[in-house]
Amino acid sequence: MTKNFVAELAALLPQNAIVSEPAAVALYARDQGPILDLQTPLAVVWAENTGQVQLILRWAQARRVSIVARGAGTGVSGGAHATKDCIVLNLERMNRIVDVRPLDEVAVVEPGVINADLNEAVANHGLMYAPDPASYRISTIGGNVATNAGGLRCAKYGVTRDSILALDVVLADGTLIHTGVQTFKGVAGYDLTSLFVGSEGTLGIVVGITVRLRYIPHRVQTLAVFFPDVQSAAAGVLAVGRARVQPAIMELLDGMTLAALDGAHGSDLRERGGALLLIQTDGFGAEAEAAVVRRVLTQLGGTVSAQDAEEAARLIDLRRHSRGDEVDDEFRVGEDVAVPRSQLVTYIAELERVASDHEVLLKVVAHAGDGNLHPTFWVSAAEGEEGVARLELALDESVRLALDVGGTITGEHGVGQYKLRWLAWEQGEGVLELQRRIKEVFDPRGILNPGKAIIARA
Amino acid sequence: MTKNFVAELAALLPQNAIVSEPAAVALYARDQGPILDLQTPLAVVWAENTGQVQLILRWAQARRVSIVARGAGTGVSGGAHATKDCIVLNLERMNRIVDVRPLDEVAVVEPGVINADLNEAVANHGLMYAPDPASYRISTIGGNVATNAGGLRCAKYGVTRDSILALDVVLADGTLIHTGVQTFKGVAGYDLTSLFVGSEGTLGIVVGITVRLRYIPHRVQTLAVFFPDVQSAAAGVLAVGRARVQPAIMELLDGMTLAALDGAHGSDLRERGGALLLIQTDGFGAEAEAAVVRRVLTQLGGTVSAQDAEEAARLIDLRRHSRGDEVDDEFRVGEDVAVPRSQLVTYIAELERVASDHEVLLKVVAHAGDGNLHPTFWVSAAEGEEGVARLELALDESVRLALDVGGTITGEHGVGQYKLRWLAWEQGEGVLELQRRIKEVFDPRGILNPGKAIIARA
Repeated sequence: MTKNFVAELAALLPQNAIVSEPAAVALYARDQGPILDLQTPLAVVWAENTGQVQLILRWAQARRVSIVARGAGTGVSGGAHATKDCIVLNLERMNRIVDVRPLDEVAVVEPGVINADLNEAVANHGLMYAPDPASYRISTIGGNVATNAGGLRCAKYGVTRDSILALDVVLADGTLIHTGVQTFKGVAGYDLTSLFVGSEGTLGIVVGITVRLRYIPHRVQTLAVFFPDVQSAAAGVLAVGRARVQPAIMELLDGMTLAALDGAHGSDLRERGGALLLIQTDGFGAEAEAAVVRRVLTQLGGTVSAQDAEEAARLIDLRRHSRGDEVDDEFRVGEDVAVPRSQLVTYIAELERVASDHEVLLKVVAHAGDGNLHPTFWVSAAEGEEGVARLELALDESVRLALDVGGTITGEHGVGQYKLRWLAWEQGEGVLELQRRIKEVFDPRGILNPGKAIIARA
Repeated sequence: MTKNFVAELAALLPQNAIVSEPAAVALYARDQGPILDLQTPLAVVWAENTGQVQLILRWAQARRVSIVARGAGTGVSGGAHATKDCIVLNLERMNRIVDVRPLDEVAVVEPGVINADLNEAVANHGLMYAPDPASYRISTIGGNVATNAGGLRCAKYGVTRDSILALDVVLADGTLIHTGVQTFKGVAGYDLTSLFVGSEGTLGIVVGITVRLRYIPHRVQTLAVFFPDVQSAAAGVLAVGRARVQPAIMELLDGMTLAALDGAHGSDLRERGGALLLIQTDGFGAEAEAAVVRRVLTQLGGTVSAQDAEEAARLIDLRRHSRGDEVDDEFRVGEDVAVPRSQLVTYIAELERVASDHEVLLKVVAHAGDGNLHPTFWVSAAEGEEGVARLELALDESVRLALDVGGTITGEHGVGQYKLRWLAWEQGEGVLELQRRIKEVFDPRGILNPGKAIIARA
């Protein structure tokens, strides 16, 4: 049966479009999220254009074969993990920048375009694509759309959804539809575009993306401000807000994170403080904003690092990779809750208590301007199952505490497969059921990335 | 039957909650959009809390009675026009500002809160609610949510949807659900919040709204720049964009609009130029941005008006009311298309040709930073049916031309009832059908604002 499926699909497509050898498909069986249930896809198929995606989906719909779409596989919630007897639909070859319209401040791309490549293509027009997940150098915009990816600049420039104007989507039955508008505003009909963004390939396969571009800021100022501890740094985030300054970037790194960066990169960050706020202001008022930030944080006990532009760029870069160097596994899990900003100080204290109670290690980075925290909990692999059990207890408690203060289980990584266990803690049955019924409208046979993003009916 | 319905509903509610006398209900039978099919509601019912909305919907669902929700009725697309044998559900008494959390930069309001009242309530914290439709002094935030209202500040601060974090919604069967998050970021599940925003009361009744607040800018600069004609003013919009300056407000007013304002307010705008760009920059870089704008537009032949802060404020205010003074009727219709910015110059020229071809009068204002145009076409009432026929031809052609250059039929006013005739020009059958099926998920009996926002199955 399986072999027949692969042969059937192969017959529909060009020579080099499909592989089914175990060693070859294993490379595409997972993303960077923790594995709950490792599955091997029947095959991996590469689409090169919309017509091929339509062919593949018509076939899959007829055969009731599951389709797991993926880009670069940099997601961290298992949204692109293979499911049982699935075909992985790889969109990396659909990587054309179809159109750049500088006067319209709009670009049209295929889903496999790398985030950084689009930025490079539009930079000479003074334009940028604002959403900048830490993976921006390797992740695809299609994947960013699937997860509604965030990043460092969200507090000022918004998340992926805020930059998406229109989508071309192949539905489960192979139909191609166009949602949204080519203009900055448009209110005709229901917002299907926002519905597809963040739906993790469960409602349709995005084959074309129209993005709004933003202006590369004329000026940028970066401040690195060291604090004695993470509590005072979190208080600094609130103080900048109270001064009514909106930085483009406001990242918080705790002492354990600084030590880890020092270990990896030979820096001396941990010596300079117990926590770091990395703040970037941009635009015509960058200097004036930075001056206010400097004053406010100094008053609060922060030490502004004397630095030049090169060090600033290096620190931002270090921050971008402060999780990316490590891949999660059963002994190490990075979390992604978001909390209301007023709760940052308390919540970080609670995280430390949770880590201590369960005897697990903890480091915390946060897109603090958004209240979006990335605590990483880990235990030594030598601790085995007992360590994993403590880790799981700590994770559950950290998520529960975020919800208790009005937060969410996932600020930007998506539910995927890994966070399903917490979703019903956040969303009521009414909302869960509406999502199931929307899923049924778009994908009545349930072939699109089954068991992801939403909780199936019991 | 009708009387029984009203009596039944009245029995469920407090004494002063319902009226059914023709003169009383007539006041709530329509919004400010053109009338296609004037209907008189069976009754108008005022809900004071969520529980009452639930009661009303449970009853309506059981009785299959249509519910047309409304706030202040300032919409201009007929989204709140009464439909046959409907109950109008008036939410103006649900006007409590439930919570303002300055540290979180969030507020929670009931749907009947007037946009300006929220702004007043948060201003002492240095915060603002950014979406500012021209009706902001009289329109409700619930109505703004229903239509995904735009306004003057959208180019920089986004439309209503961009400021909505979470909603409390009563579904057609009376169930209360909570969508979204209390945080700036959140990607758990499908984006139901964005689906409700702009759905014009066809998917559920919004009874609670959590909004993200923005910072009141430290500094504001306003420039009034006169041009010899509307074409050169539109070219100025593109020039400001090319200088990579993002104003908070960039409004274009043509000569006919200036003359109308002069007539209404005794100003001398039309003497000073054939078109006006009204530009506001804000934030720490306001002066630097204004200097660039001034330089760019002067080079292009614009004349920057010498002025003080008072005149600037007055001009913005005049602009806000440059359509609001007039209510549309069969002889006068204000349009709301949006086009890609590069098409502004050409499209405005086409509008003038269309008006000339069909011998109708035209004036144009535009949220030019967004490419969102509000042309108003009119004929003298004395021309009767023949004039109306020419007006309709001009309207249709203007909409068709906007679509031809990649635009949308409605930038911010919503489809409501009035723009349904153009919706299928913009959206393919696949998208129209998905919207119908989503509507069926939320409102299987079709009681919520039937015949609005989407095109029913043929």
